[in-house]
Amino acid sequence: MDDLAFETALNELRADRVLGASELARRCLDLLARSAQSVPANEGSELLGELTRRCDCLIAARPSMAPIQNLLAAWRSSLARLDRFSLPELRSVAADKARDGIRQSKQAMVKVVENSVEYIGSDKTIITHSLSSTVLAVFEKLKDRNTRVIVTESRPLNEGYILARQLSDWDISAQLITDAQLGLFAARADLVLLGADSLLPDGSLINKSGSYLLALAAHDCGVPLYVCCESFKRRKEVMGELELEEMEASELGTSSLPGVRVRNIYFDITPAGLIDRWIDEAGVHATGILSEETHRMPGQ
Amino acid sequence: MDDLAFETALNELRADRVLGASELARRCLDLLARSAQSVPANEGSELLGELTRRCDCLIAARPSMAPIQNLLAAWRSSLARLDRFSLPELRSVAADKARDGIRQSKQAMVKVVENSVEYIGSDKTIITHSLSSTVLAVFEKLKDRNTRVIVTESRPLNEGYILARQLSDWDISAQLITDAQLGLFAARADLVLLGADSLLPDGSLINKSGSYLLALAAHDCGVPLYVCCESFKRRKEVMGELELEEMEASELGTSSLPGVRVRNIYFDITPAGLIDRWIDEAGVHATGILSEETHRMPGQ
Repeated sequence: MDDLAFETALNELRADRVLGASELARRCLDLLARSAQSVPANEGSELLGELTRRCDCLIAARPSMAPIQNLLAAWRSSLARLDRFSLPELRSVAADKARDGIRQSKQAMVKVVENSVEYIGSDKTIITHSLSSTVLAVFEKLKDRNTRVIVTESRPLNEGYILARQLSDWDISAQLITDAQLGLFAARADLVLLGADSLLPDGSLINKSGSYLLALAAHDCGVPLYVCCESFKRRKEVMGELELEEMEASELGTSSLPGVRVRNIYFDITPAGLIDRWIDEAGVHATGILSEETHRMPGQ
Repeated sequence: MDDLAFETALNELRADRVLGASELARRCLDLLARSAQSVPANEGSELLGELTRRCDCLIAARPSMAPIQNLLAAWRSSLARLDRFSLPELRSVAADKARDGIRQSKQAMVKVVENSVEYIGSDKTIITHSLSSTVLAVFEKLKDRNTRVIVTESRPLNEGYILARQLSDWDISAQLITDAQLGLFAARADLVLLGADSLLPDGSLINKSGSYLLALAAHDCGVPLYVCCESFKRRKEVMGELELEEMEASELGTSSLPGVRVRNIYFDITPAGLIDRWIDEAGVHATGILSEETHRMPGQ
């Protein structure tokens, strides 16, 4: 993987609007594994310098994506303990450690899905917002367990339609609503299930705009809200003011009007106080602050 | 206005999805005024019988529209006191009373707008949802008073675009957002201003779906919510379970999927506890229950 190929991959990473943060983190680790094996270097320190540089470039490309920050930082710090190896050994070990990160990320997601399915159980009506790959995997596991799903359009890009189509393919009974009907339908669900773009240190959820509205409505109606995501999605700290990404106004598909600014902020923040359970690979937590966590699995 | 013309008008009333409830009520009164003058009748009691029948048909056509119920019921009960008149006098008086109702309705709206403008004042950022003719009239009066407006798309029919276009024509600075961004933008406004489809006896608001979400977000952020509408929009009572009209699923513009039911409920209910001020033609009220009302105008 030469410099040009790496730069191309880096630009793709910056521009991506389709893949989830965890999937992108795994792609970054794959780039680093391939870099470890193929970057030109005459000695170990040269290789480590270039791998560290590439890792930092990837981290800087999507600063708000916690899995990229967390998984790549862990890999980067593992490099520091490798200076006793020969160059060929170093290539192999650094690549293996990157692949370990990919494996850990995948295993964490599998466990999150297992824990969510076990905790939610059968015969439930679940309302969700936007399209989360983790929530989708939970629905797949629940498809033969008398599950009904309420899905939002999720403007502006309507990824809720993609979710509705998948549920239809799995023969899961679904209702598709406009985002504006979230208040009406929250009361008709047994629970809210949301994935996460990321979690803040206090357990607050950053997720697709509209998640906060659903959380407010669920709270007002007494319907519990569960967030399911791997612990890699936790931001350890937020530097300065939290920035919520704003995308192209053109996604709304409206013609421009003088004096009218079309806004398209992708994420909103759901305060931890509106969330009832945090489900990660370790279990089900009644608090969003990990240092004070209580693991609560059914039957325990 | 013969029976056929009346039936045609009645069907138009049933099918209308564009005009507000107050405007439709005034059109009903105009139909009754014209009926009073032209319905074939040999004596007063015959005329009164036919006018009462037509009035009842109009009332039954849109049972959830409070102004139609209220203004037509008032006109209908005024007919009961007219049996001492000759047939030509009766025609003239019944028609005049219908036109009085139209005038009262228009005057009430003018006063609601005046009271709202006076209470809101200059230099405000106002967030609203959907398109209310009363709220639109308030914005027109506020256009030279340094007013900024945050407008939602209001899916599925996007009437927010119509509002944004009008604001642009008036040189009022506006931001247009998806309904899903209501939670992000409620916090950026000084106040929420909503019109009403109708008000329930306890002061709860029935309005376009999404209003409840905006109210929850505003309440959570400490931003006050004002509802402005004429007292004719109050439902005196709700018989049985309250029914919220559901429109055609096709309005969402999605292709049909097996097992997926597309929902399009037009109205949601905002509990009175989320509303800070009710503005009607009599003034500004701090409670939604009219029997316990306290009038509070600025400076009082």
